Amino acid sequence: MSGSNADSWVVPFDEGRAADKLLLGGKGANLAEMTHIGLPVPPGFVVTTEACRSYLAEGQVPSGLFDQVEAALKDLEARTGRRLGDPSAPLLLSVRSGAPFSMPGMMDTVLDLGATPETAAGLAEMGDERFAWDATRRFLEMYGRVVLGVSEETFNHNLEAAIESAGATDERGLSAEQLAEVSDAHRRSIADAGQDLPEEPHEQLHLAIEAVFRSWNGDRARAYRRVEGIPDDLGTAVNVQMMVFGNLGDRSATGVAFTRDPATGENVPYGDFLIGAQGEDVVAGTRHVHPLAELADEFPEQHEQLLANLDTLEAHYRDLCDVEFTIESDTLWMLQTRVGKRSASAALRMATDMVDEGLIDVDEAVTRVRPKQLEQLLHPQFGSDAPEPLTTGLAASPGAAVGAICLSSDEAKERGIAGEDVILVRPETSPEDLEGMVASVGLLTSRGGLVSHAAVVARGFGKPAVCGASELRIDAKADTVTVGDTVLHAGDVISIDGTNGQVAVGEVDLEIPGDDPRLERLLDWADERRVLHVFANADTADDAGRALESGAEGIGLCRTEHQFLGDRLPLIQKMILSRSPEEERDALVELERQQREDFEALFEVMDGKRVVIRLLDPPLHEFLPNVEELHIKEATDGLSDHERDLLEAAEQLREHDPMLGVRGIRLGVLRPEVYRAQVRAILEAAAARTAAGGNPLPEIMLPLIGTSQELEWGVNLIHEVAGELRDAGAEEVDYTVATMIETPRAALRSGALAQYVDAFSFGTNDLTQLTFGLSRDDVEATYTPRALELKLLPVDPFRTLDPDGVGRLIELAVKEGRETFPEIVTGICGEHGGDPDSIALAHRYGLTHVSCSASRLKVARLAAAHAALEVSGPDATA
Amino acid sequence: MSGSNADSWVVPFDEGRAADKLLLGGKGANLAEMTHIGLPVPPGFVVTTEACRSYLAEGQVPSGLFDQVEAALKDLEARTGRRLGDPSAPLLLSVRSGAPFSMPGMMDTVLDLGATPETAAGLAEMGDERFAWDATRRFLEMYGRVVLGVSEETFNHNLEAAIESAGATDERGLSAEQLAEVSDAHRRSIADAGQDLPEEPHEQLHLAIEAVFRSWNGDRARAYRRVEGIPDDLGTAVNVQMMVFGNLGDRSATGVAFTRDPATGENVPYGDFLIGAQGEDVVAGTRHVHPLAELADEFPEQHEQLLANLDTLEAHYRDLCDVEFTIESDTLWMLQTRVGKRSASAALRMATDMVDEGLIDVDEAVTRVRPKQLEQLLHPQFGSDAPEPLTTGLAASPGAAVGAICLSSDEAKERGIAGEDVILVRPETSPEDLEGMVASVGLLTSRGGLVSHAAVVARGFGKPAVCGASELRIDAKADTVTVGDTVLHAGDVISIDGTNGQVAVGEVDLEIPGDDPRLERLLDWADERRVLHVFANADTADDAGRALESGAEGIGLCRTEHQFLGDRLPLIQKMILSRSPEEERDALVELERQQREDFEALFEVMDGKRVVIRLLDPPLHEFLPNVEELHIKEATDGLSDHERDLLEAAEQLREHDPMLGVRGIRLGVLRPEVYRAQVRAILEAAAARTAAGGNPLPEIMLPLIGTSQELEWGVNLIHEVAGELRDAGAEEVDYTVATMIETPRAALRSGALAQYVDAFSFGTNDLTQLTFGLSRDDVEATYTPRALELKLLPVDPFRTLDPDGVGRLIELAVKEGRETFPEIVTGICGEHGGDPDSIALAHRYGLTHVSCSASRLKVARLAAAHAALEVSGPDATA
Repeated sequence: MSGSNADSWVVPFDEGRAADKLLLGGKGANLAEMTHIGLPVPPGFVVTTEACRSYLAEGQVPSGLFDQVEAALKDLEARTGRRLGDPSAPLLLSVRSGAPFSMPGMMDTVLDLGATPETAAGLAEMGDERFAWDATRRFLEMYGRVVLGVSEETFNHNLEAAIESAGATDERGLSAEQLAEVSDAHRRSIADAGQDLPEEPHEQLHLAIEAVFRSWNGDRARAYRRVEGIPDDLGTAVNVQMMVFGNLGDRSATGVAFTRDPATGENVPYGDFLIGAQGEDVVAGTRHVHPLAELADEFPEQHEQLLANLDTLEAHYRDLCDVEFTIESDTLWMLQTRVGKRSASAALRMATDMVDEGLIDVDEAVTRVRPKQLEQLLHPQFGSDAPEPLTTGLAASPGAAVGAICLSSDEAKERGIAGEDVILVRPETSPEDLEGMVASVGLLTSRGGLVSHAAVVARGFGKPAVCGASELRIDAKADTVTVGDTVLHAGDVISIDGTNGQVAVGEVDLEIPGDDPRLERLLDWADERRVLHVFANADTADDAGRALESGAEGIGLCRTEHQFLGDRLPLIQKMILSRSPEEERDALVELERQQREDFEALFEVMDGKRVVIRLLDPPLHEFLPNVEELHIKEATDGLSDHERDLLEAAEQLREHDPMLGVRGIRLGVLRPEVYRAQVRAILEAAAARTAAGGNPLPEIMLPLIGTSQELEWGVNLIHEVAGELRDAGAEEVDYTVATMIETPRAALRSGALAQYVDAFSFGTNDLTQLTFGLSRDDVEATYTPRALELKLLPVDPFRTLDPDGVGRLIELAVKEGRETFPEIVTGICGEHGGDPDSIALAHRYGLTHVSCSASRLKVARLAAAHAALEVSGPDATA
Repeated sequence: MSGSNADSWVVPFDEGRAADKLLLGGKGANLAEMTHIGLPVPPGFVVTTEACRSYLAEGQVPSGLFDQVEAALKDLEARTGRRLGDPSAPLLLSVRSGAPFSMPGMMDTVLDLGATPETAAGLAEMGDERFAWDATRRFLEMYGRVVLGVSEETFNHNLEAAIESAGATDERGLSAEQLAEVSDAHRRSIADAGQDLPEEPHEQLHLAIEAVFRSWNGDRARAYRRVEGIPDDLGTAVNVQMMVFGNLGDRSATGVAFTRDPATGENVPYGDFLIGAQGEDVVAGTRHVHPLAELADEFPEQHEQLLANLDTLEAHYRDLCDVEFTIESDTLWMLQTRVGKRSASAALRMATDMVDEGLIDVDEAVTRVRPKQLEQLLHPQFGSDAPEPLTTGLAASPGAAVGAICLSSDEAKERGIAGEDVILVRPETSPEDLEGMVASVGLLTSRGGLVSHAAVVARGFGKPAVCGASELRIDAKADTVTVGDTVLHAGDVISIDGTNGQVAVGEVDLEIPGDDPRLERLLDWADERRVLHVFANADTADDAGRALESGAEGIGLCRTEHQFLGDRLPLIQKMILSRSPEEERDALVELERQQREDFEALFEVMDGKRVVIRLLDPPLHEFLPNVEELHIKEATDGLSDHERDLLEAAEQLREHDPMLGVRGIRLGVLRPEVYRAQVRAILEAAAARTAAGGNPLPEIMLPLIGTSQELEWGVNLIHEVAGELRDAGAEEVDYTVATMIETPRAALRSGALAQYVDAFSFGTNDLTQLTFGLSRDDVEATYTPRALELKLLPVDPFRTLDPDGVGRLIELAVKEGRETFPEIVTGICGEHGGDPDSIALAHRYGLTHVSCSASRLKVARLAAAHAALEVSGPDATA
């Protein structure tokens, strides 16, 4: 033997353990584990992932590998009493891929290796002659396709020709002789394709191992890994194992089984089997399978043994396991096991049941339900019989809805208020669409991403939304929505599922989750374990009520811009058109009164809980009509005097890059009366609540801070207004002050900022946008998908916090802020506040809280517990 | 005496030195210095800035201060033989402010303190009765205004009434008795204003000191400090000094003098004087002064003594000094000195002359000309007789120009090419205006800031520009430009000065600087001393030629977007409208050929010098017509098919925030053929130059990098194209690769980026924009001025690099980049590369080079030398 790592390229099953997953792959490690605990596993060995990595890096198998394979094979032959290629007692091998993370069906497998014309007689002795030739033609099909690259259709064609000439309905109707002829035809096809079939089984084995290695970099496998976030550099192991046969006649069978029901979680073994068949026949779904319980009728002993094995496995793995098994001539073999995938509700039921059964502890139970699975338990979804979707967009706000298409907000408002279920369908939405959005049961846009206006508002309202469905062509003049050849009209009914982004024509039956006391139990456990506090982003008392029901400990972000929309739009427009601080102040009087009522209602709902209110943030032109539309009207119908005033103001306020323009504190500096009115409204509302015996806890937050001087200015403004109210004899109100950290500079200057405030709130949407110089809305449909495909962006940074850039700034800001003011409260209030991976980072950075929309609160509570329990990443239960 | 700092509130002149400027103020320190070197200074003492700071912080004078003042006063009385308030031998005092940095006329002064009705007789003995009453009324005027806050007009009114009733022409025509009456009137006015005039001179002195302290925070003083960048927390000293009188008749005089001519730098003493007058009369400019040389006629002895004193001062300070002097009854007194202000050309002449005279060394000479002064020596400017400007905008590109107003680029192009001097006047400019801009002698815009398109292009072309002149109302339909009531028409001649932002009606005489060999001598000295290399931003061979003449060591930034404009616009539009990589490639063939020619010409001019070429950066919609205009045309006249295609493309490419959209490397990723064509053009041009015996040194730079994967992708693309050319048999070309660092994330990930490139170039415009979340164009006319006024922004971060945020990122990126690749080249190529204060920071951060437009190169060379010589800040010579 040669090569420095020569000792370790091959590991026999009885020398490995489940923990060796990275080296042996998931399948190999579990085969080894089952062997270790005494279950009947056909003997074999694993060629390690290390060998694969070496092969892929060097372009050739590592030196010594095949020597070790031969040695392991010799050992296997000794155990089984059969030999590879031996005409009288032939050993057949399965050669299966097995990656460290499950990639079902993505890589290649060769079965029946060792079935050759020379071994046909010996095989016939195991079963019969037909079995021998069936194995041979199966081997040729798989080997031809996987190792030699001959197209699958070629082999299908040969088989179908034989079936047709035999007058049979399928291959089961072919005789041994006919199957031998198929084998011959396959051999000819391989030769015709210019490929060389090695006749020697040992050589076949070597080439099969290499082919499995290569399949790691196949297109399908690469695509799957990209979607699932599996690293490209792990490589696959190769499991070489004695074949056992479920198709050796009536006393043989094959099947799959779960230790519990993976759909419901009920503690009853679950599975299917076929008599006289191979595993691929079960999976293919072409034959009618029998439920596991019926196995007791035909194979009572093996059934009992299988149930005992399942119990052993579940007790050993302390989790749901699924297995593949085969009965070969009355002998039960376990061919594979792994921790089983399960539905969200099954995960929840099993987690709580297993605690009650004493199988796992509560910590473990909390980790058994993935935060992302929770979404399925919280919102209606398309049922399993939903039709093929018309198109798919971004899953922008979870839940599903059915309603009539409305192409304008006015129409949606009218029909929605009249009691009709409508879905507002727009290229994108703006604050002007708000009332139409409120009146709709769901939103569908053709442009805009996960943080577009439509998406953010929908999540705030807890309404389903599909955004950026770019195949939609919306023609507002013709009142039509077109996808390819399908033309829908306003009023037609569609269904949308904001959990998976699907859009379907007509009414789809929805699955509506019921109340599950297990969920509350799990979330209570999660709450006891999490360190992060969980706040809600909520703008109104209604929002806040929903948030409380979902377990919000306070309001982490109340955006006040929504208080200026709808009926109030003319008031803010009057303010914008004002020419002096006096006019500005007058225009604000009525708005201030209405805001005071809003805040009073909010404080009442959130009595005794912190409510963080952000002063006005968006640029003022968002409250004005669209300049372009006014210009077109000017050029065609002409403008009224008021419209001309609005156009002039809109022209003046127009910005090239509104995200970087006069918004946030800059707006406050240029229009201080707006901020003063807001602060007065907040403090007077709090005073009124205090007078009524309540306990309001307002925190006033300043947006888009860039310099410590800006922050100082804003904080002084707040204290000044408070002082004026005090001087005017108002009830004394306790309030705290916070700053958003959403510009990189604010993060870099956090040490200075911490002098002025009680809290930092990381606005991770803007912070991500500025750190990358990347506008969420402008790239989500263009650059982002391409960049994710090319792995130029490791993840979409607007979904999951970027640890290397944005996260680094957050970590630095927390550290330097605490150096100035150790008790400073720190939280995230961007979209990331509801994303489990981002919550894990927030925990790692030592933040005080996360804040997210009400619909994501339960997910956040669970994710925070996972972070505290140090569950790593999204693959924890897979 | 009480108070812990009690020892130090007061310092007599003979105990201080010039170096004590921060404690004694500039005036006091220099009076002390003159006393120290034996010049005749009227005795006195300084109340320190520390006392002022204490007063301003506590709201009352520090304990012990007035005790010390009295003690120092007693000493002064002993020296002079006169006593404050003594009727027979009265001492009169001047009480003058004196800040650490010169703030001429910004703070308050009280003279003649001690002139009261009681001391009038004693004063009459010094001069005559008229002198006594003149001093008394002068004292009342100043004290009334400064200490008691009575309006100046009140006193003017009393004086004018007296002059009128006496039938005199000015106050010199008033008799002693009449002046006594004026004093009485002044006293009555003070009482009428409700103010209490203390009669006791000691009390007057105390209150005068407090008043001077308070004047530090007067509106004018604060405004001045804001403009000059003087810190607010320094405080002022107060100089209390024996009055001497130049108005005691014919043997008295007063004047100002410079050791050399401050306008030309010629080594000849320069100054003015008046006989029988006080200093304020010289400064007021109401009387006809005599040139200093004539002093020899009337006061030969004193003249000689003064010249000797000037020689002493210049030898002592080794710099131009200016002085105030007074001759009281044949005795010469030196009242003040300081290092004198000088014109730019005088600074240059004196710096070189003083080296030749052995007065200063070359290091010192280099520091004697401020980089910002250089601008005056390099560009035409409005002459000193320029009329009042019509309006003022931002000084966007230095130089002055005179031309006819053109309101459209087409017209400017037509008339400019026909040989007329035209000034293009637009709300703002876009790439479509380029040809009109080229054909104009100057640019004037009403919107946009110092880094707007107009400003950047103008500086690139070395053309004068005034931008953001927000008072301009441009009405393109009426062909008028209006400012207030002034209406100008297209074709009217205006003048603009891009050095100070002035816009004037009609033709203004310009001062055109000549070639000055002293400047080249100074810059040679600077080049020998600077550590930073100085590169130019230049896009064409012509630009590069100009840059070379100004001393560029290479091209630090060649922006390739200009290669797609003008005649080439249809070609890039064809590329944008292409539907496949093949069409894209075809559309690029002609563009590639033309770019190759551009680069070849550039490499020829810059033979043997590094040329850094940035691949296409701006979003593609910048190459398409304006969507809004097309929409209006669609709604009115209708669109052609081609226009409809352009509209569709423009709609699709339209972005909310183009600065954060698909540009830079993102464009390259989505349109790789564009980048491939550019790289081919660069490398083929370099190969052609090499074949012709040249030595091209191309460096290919990738813009707007956010992740290391993006950079790796871009670098691989470059190497791939190079490999393809090599494989096709092209001449081997050496090239290097660079990345822009212009997103905060790139700075934060510099350690990873440094693996892939030879150089970092900090794009400080974008980096500033993203770090602050502030769009240069959108806030420069709105938020920025207000924020500077309120000191919410310490400086305009687009003019001068922000050290705390942006600078911190640069420092970090340089450090972490060098940890990965110690030899990495680092430079700044944003607008800051030509700003002296930013260059000082670049030097401090250890960057390799700065790169700026050709017109700023000489300034940059000098600033880099200043940085190396550790000249601090803008106040180095003041």
